[in-house]
Amino acid sequence: MTDVISIAKNAKIAASKMLQISSKIKNLALEKIANELEKNKNNIINANNIDLNNAVKLLDEGKISQSSYNRLKLDENKIRDMIQGIRDIVKLNDPVNNILWQRDIAEGITLKKISCPIGVIGVIFEARPDVISQISSLAIKSSNVVILKGGSEAVNTNTEIFNIIKNTLSSIDSFPDNAVNIIFSRDDVKEMLCADEYINLIIPRGSNSLVKFIKENTKIPVLGHADGICHIYIDKDADKNKITDIVIDAKCQYPSACNAVETILIHTEIKDIVLPKLLEKLKANNVKINSDEIIKNSYFQYIDNIVENWHKEYGDKIISLKIVNSVDEAIEHINTFGSGHTDCIITENNEIAEKFMMFVDSAGVYKNISTRFADGFRYGFGAEVGISTNKTHARGPVGLEGLTIYKYKLYGNGDIVSDFISGKRKFNK
Amino acid sequence: MTDVISIAKNAKIAASKMLQISSKIKNLALEKIANELEKNKNNIINANNIDLNNAVKLLDEGKISQSSYNRLKLDENKIRDMIQGIRDIVKLNDPVNNILWQRDIAEGITLKKISCPIGVIGVIFEARPDVISQISSLAIKSSNVVILKGGSEAVNTNTEIFNIIKNTLSSIDSFPDNAVNIIFSRDDVKEMLCADEYINLIIPRGSNSLVKFIKENTKIPVLGHADGICHIYIDKDADKNKITDIVIDAKCQYPSACNAVETILIHTEIKDIVLPKLLEKLKANNVKINSDEIIKNSYFQYIDNIVENWHKEYGDKIISLKIVNSVDEAIEHINTFGSGHTDCIITENNEIAEKFMMFVDSAGVYKNISTRFADGFRYGFGAEVGISTNKTHARGPVGLEGLTIYKYKLYGNGDIVSDFISGKRKFNK
Repeated sequence: MTDVISIAKNAKIAASKMLQISSKIKNLALEKIANELEKNKNNIINANNIDLNNAVKLLDEGKISQSSYNRLKLDENKIRDMIQGIRDIVKLNDPVNNILWQRDIAEGITLKKISCPIGVIGVIFEARPDVISQISSLAIKSSNVVILKGGSEAVNTNTEIFNIIKNTLSSIDSFPDNAVNIIFSRDDVKEMLCADEYINLIIPRGSNSLVKFIKENTKIPVLGHADGICHIYIDKDADKNKITDIVIDAKCQYPSACNAVETILIHTEIKDIVLPKLLEKLKANNVKINSDEIIKNSYFQYIDNIVENWHKEYGDKIISLKIVNSVDEAIEHINTFGSGHTDCIITENNEIAEKFMMFVDSAGVYKNISTRFADGFRYGFGAEVGISTNKTHARGPVGLEGLTIYKYKLYGNGDIVSDFISGKRKFNK
Repeated sequence: MTDVISIAKNAKIAASKMLQISSKIKNLALEKIANELEKNKNNIINANNIDLNNAVKLLDEGKISQSSYNRLKLDENKIRDMIQGIRDIVKLNDPVNNILWQRDIAEGITLKKISCPIGVIGVIFEARPDVISQISSLAIKSSNVVILKGGSEAVNTNTEIFNIIKNTLSSIDSFPDNAVNIIFSRDDVKEMLCADEYINLIIPRGSNSLVKFIKENTKIPVLGHADGICHIYIDKDADKNKITDIVIDAKCQYPSACNAVETILIHTEIKDIVLPKLLEKLKANNVKINSDEIIKNSYFQYIDNIVENWHKEYGDKIISLKIVNSVDEAIEHINTFGSGHTDCIITENNEIAEKFMMFVDSAGVYKNISTRFADGFRYGFGAEVGISTNKTHARGPVGLEGLTIYKYKLYGNGDIVSDFISGKRKFNK
């Protein structure tokens, strides 16, 4: 069995050493990793083939879905994108050792707020082997140390990629040992969750139940999202030409993504203009439609079921439809049944749009645009470690900035508080 | 018994309504609170006298310390400072609804990162009645809703001040009900810790054991610090004239503060130049001195005890002294036994100072200045809700900015991801 506590302990030592690695060395390391992955492309594909062969059985037995199988597969294109992703991260600005803010708090006393890495970050992710290089690269770029746990179906591919990264880092003189680490089993994860003395942050990606289990079983701060229950509200002032395209994109372009839409709310005044075309188009795209009683009564031929649970992430080509009487009712529904991930209004009315975007308490509030845009790459962050529905630290797609914190450096010249208490000296206003 | 879950539920409703309160209304509310506290000064002092009379018994029985008693006492000066504190917060910039960052992610698609309140914040604080108005004011200014639990010895003063604040807010038409809330007992706190559905952040202030208890008994994110084990490292290149003043200020100016120093590390090369004067001065200030064996052997007449536990916050006029052989040993000692609060180096050597300030993993890393400067007011934040030793969200003294998070607003015109996947459209670089 893996000695996770020792891994975590050594990771903490590595985190301290990472503080002195320059931007230049970090970028050199990332370049070398990209080159080595390129050179070892065939080994990666071979390892992936072993995982795929094993997964075929699971697929036949119905233990994994076709989309899980597809995500597991690494072809030349995906490897090329993976390598390009690392080179894109090289081009980003170094997020640490930057002066975020600076002020002379009194004559001769300078306060500097300096960005710095969080330390040791445990990342648990699904069986998508392209993720391992992305997360490792973001961690290296931000001077953090990672402990990685990938989906077990990808174990051979992950091990191959991990070893390439680890060996490349070992070949760079000044790079600390144990800057990247890997663990394999669920028991390892349980042990990791107890290592709060050494690990500063856990980022879980994957199923709702996994994320909930992690949140309930660790004292370490957790950054991520359990559910992705995204909504589109079609306002009475919606532009009819935008509705169907946005809804179909948000539901069908990648139904298992966390930013795919689950529920459509439709203003009652516009329902009979919107619904015939929308229902037709959803059916044409093989979407199963659940709805409230009102829609079911008028459009029963399209409706599969009455919605029983508005707080449900389908993650599939299934959608819930509901009529609302106002933007306020839409906001209330979203804040009650949503998950604070990404919610959209379709309207040409700016005042109503701003109201919706102010009161919907979600990481992403959108106007006239598909929820599928909620993604670190699309936001221009270069890449993401995940999407957070937390209300502290980082919210929405989390890129390099979310992997940093800051410290305050205070420079004096023998200064004491007593002189300020006595009135001998004064703080700057 | 207080129905804490109902309070928390209503607080969440209030938090949503707070989103639309303008800066102008918030500042008006704060001005009115300051005026009302001024008008009701005598009632506050009367309530405080009841608390003080009760506390005298506790003091006689040794159940509270003289310094706790002093903190409980509100005289005219403290009330004046309290009111001035609110007026200072009025002058600060509104921390919410600011555009933190903005970018066109593609032609016609604009992404805005907007600061917003966290939501509902539970604050548990010591028996210092001047804190209740400070925290309420910071919460109002940042559009957050608070649930307050003050030290039980201050119950009458807190209730009086709370009622003045609450009644003032009620007199302002547009201000939501339940924007400030109070609970009273330990059982109430336990119930609050379970209300993770409604409360977004807990800020505990007070004893180590209280903070630890809270961290271990809630799923709500906790911002604060358990220990304040601060160090001063006297380097071989220290300016002899700065040492004693800084150490005496850091230990004696307010020994029970979390930013008071607990341990002095002295470079072996400078020990016999530093120690005679330093030990003399500490004794003259009635500081009890514990040390390692080396110091005890040479300066036994000054030393009370050998240090048994380097990870101990005395919070009193007691100090630990240790000889180290290098800045590296000092850094290692601090990162092992410290609490990540505030640590200082005394040196004229910039290279060694920067090394210390890079590798010491604390919220505050200081050069040639007393650790007592670690304070939101002194940093220029106007006020603070507490000091955080977390590695996520906010670190060090937490002012208005630490009470905010952000959301992403995305403005489109019917845009869909499919067009970008197909290559029909491109994201901006």
